[in-house]
Amino acid sequence: MYISVPATSANLGPGFDTLGVALDLRNEVEIRRSRFFSVSIRGEGANNVRLKGNNLFISIFNEHYRKLTGRQEKFRFTFYNKIPLSRGLGSSSAVIVSAIAAAYGAAGVSIPKEKLLNLALTYEPHPDNITPAIMGGFNVALVERGIVYSLKKEMPKEVQAIVAIPDRPISTASSRKRLPKRYTTQDVVFNLSHSSLLTAAIFAERWEMLRIAAKDRLHQSLRMEAMPELFTLQRIALDNGALMSTLSGSGSTFFNMVYAKDAPRLEGVLKERFPNFKIYTLNFDNEGLILRD
Amino acid sequence: MYISVPATSANLGPGFDTLGVALDLRNEVEIRRSRFFSVSIRGEGANNVRLKGNNLFISIFNEHYRKLTGRQEKFRFTFYNKIPLSRGLGSSSAVIVSAIAAAYGAAGVSIPKEKLLNLALTYEPHPDNITPAIMGGFNVALVERGIVYSLKKEMPKEVQAIVAIPDRPISTASSRKRLPKRYTTQDVVFNLSHSSLLTAAIFAERWEMLRIAAKDRLHQSLRMEAMPELFTLQRIALDNGALMSTLSGSGSTFFNMVYAKDAPRLEGVLKERFPNFKIYTLNFDNEGLILRD
Repeated sequence: MYISVPATSANLGPGFDTLGVALDLRNEVEIRRSRFFSVSIRGEGANNVRLKGNNLFISIFNEHYRKLTGRQEKFRFTFYNKIPLSRGLGSSSAVIVSAIAAAYGAAGVSIPKEKLLNLALTYEPHPDNITPAIMGGFNVALVERGIVYSLKKEMPKEVQAIVAIPDRPISTASSRKRLPKRYTTQDVVFNLSHSSLLTAAIFAERWEMLRIAAKDRLHQSLRMEAMPELFTLQRIALDNGALMSTLSGSGSTFFNMVYAKDAPRLEGVLKERFPNFKIYTLNFDNEGLILRD
Repeated sequence: MYISVPATSANLGPGFDTLGVALDLRNEVEIRRSRFFSVSIRGEGANNVRLKGNNLFISIFNEHYRKLTGRQEKFRFTFYNKIPLSRGLGSSSAVIVSAIAAAYGAAGVSIPKEKLLNLALTYEPHPDNITPAIMGGFNVALVERGIVYSLKKEMPKEVQAIVAIPDRPISTASSRKRLPKRYTTQDVVFNLSHSSLLTAAIFAERWEMLRIAAKDRLHQSLRMEAMPELFTLQRIALDNGALMSTLSGSGSTFFNMVYAKDAPRLEGVLKERFPNFKIYTLNFDNEGLILRD
């Protein structure tokens, strides 16, 4: 069995805990029945011994597989990981989603994507990474009484993402601690209006609106203070063709959207100015989770 | 010269100061050069003597006409008003928009709708009524440095509005006073996510999502406490086919969206249960401001 899940950029601009998009950068896993339990990891996380021993994927997989079949069986897991760890590109959501899907696949039980989404929510309470990881495309998502409600827009080829991945993470926990507990009406309306306009701009493919609509006042600057060169990166991106430039998740990766025709130039500028960052130009992903027997 | 401007429902659901839609219920005004200044008002406001003497329309018209021509001239104004006053249906926005448009028309100066929108903003700082009044349709709008940025979705015929107009207003000022100064992160994310999902649902015409997406936690309930029967109205509307049911502006009108096929039944139920309210089934308006020489 083969499962593949895309990277995701969530918390998109003003869309705190709400807006996310899938990127064509995938974690893949192959699963075969085996006489011995074994795990091999290639790519991101390959050198991390602790990951092999205490693997989130394995524990979620086992939990669901046992629940579905009443049995504990042995599998050989081979991971091909491309999503960087702890950089705000949805690596944990990819693990959660693929582990649940794998358990259902291995048990021979088919599961609709909507049900998978609500199961994933029990491990990741914010819907903005798990939704695009499963559905692909740009997603608006919210949770009501444990159910995810979401709408998807397929992203066209005329736009691409350029992600700038720093050589170190921003801790999500310490990053959340920087945030205020309460917000003024002015800031609330700012983000509410920008997130709504960003949603409209993407659904209507009015890309010229993104530069205005993608602004945030709730969390982004406070988090970027932990890595001030991101302010420079954002300014350079917006000066060199980016339609929008915003923290991916809670960082440290920066997500830039560009017209595909402008991507090579912006990629070049960012590579030159940020030689320690990984700079990738990526297509958007419209497939989400892929599962093959 | 003839000018016509539609009624609008703003503050739509969670879209505080952001989302608004135009309704096919119009204020019209005819303006002719005349030897004497005269004003006649038919329809809403016709019996209000103070309105004739100190008319917001006339003062905005004169201000712009003088600025454009350097002259003060005499006109005969005939108003045919259908938008109820002080009921949250955008009657002041209609006055502001039509007065500025009339001054430009009378001066023989053409004005793009975008420029008109930014001029109107100087009289009405929230963009969510003036934008649909000018543009028509459903609009997402925000203001940055005195400029309105907005996107419009034309509303299809398959959905209609049923407005329930109480026999008395809720004072906007006292209504604003009920609102808190600061909001928790949870409430902020609630409205931000719902407003974004409502926007997506309307742009994608996924009407079944409105019931979830149209919920608000910032202002609606606090304002409705001034007129508790509105809670009953909302429940009855949602139980009888409304896709969404929400305060129009800051009230007192309630805005309900329905499939056109369900409109007669809901209109009947609301008329029966709220005999003192005016209940109108309206098409959405996609034209906005209309000006003819």
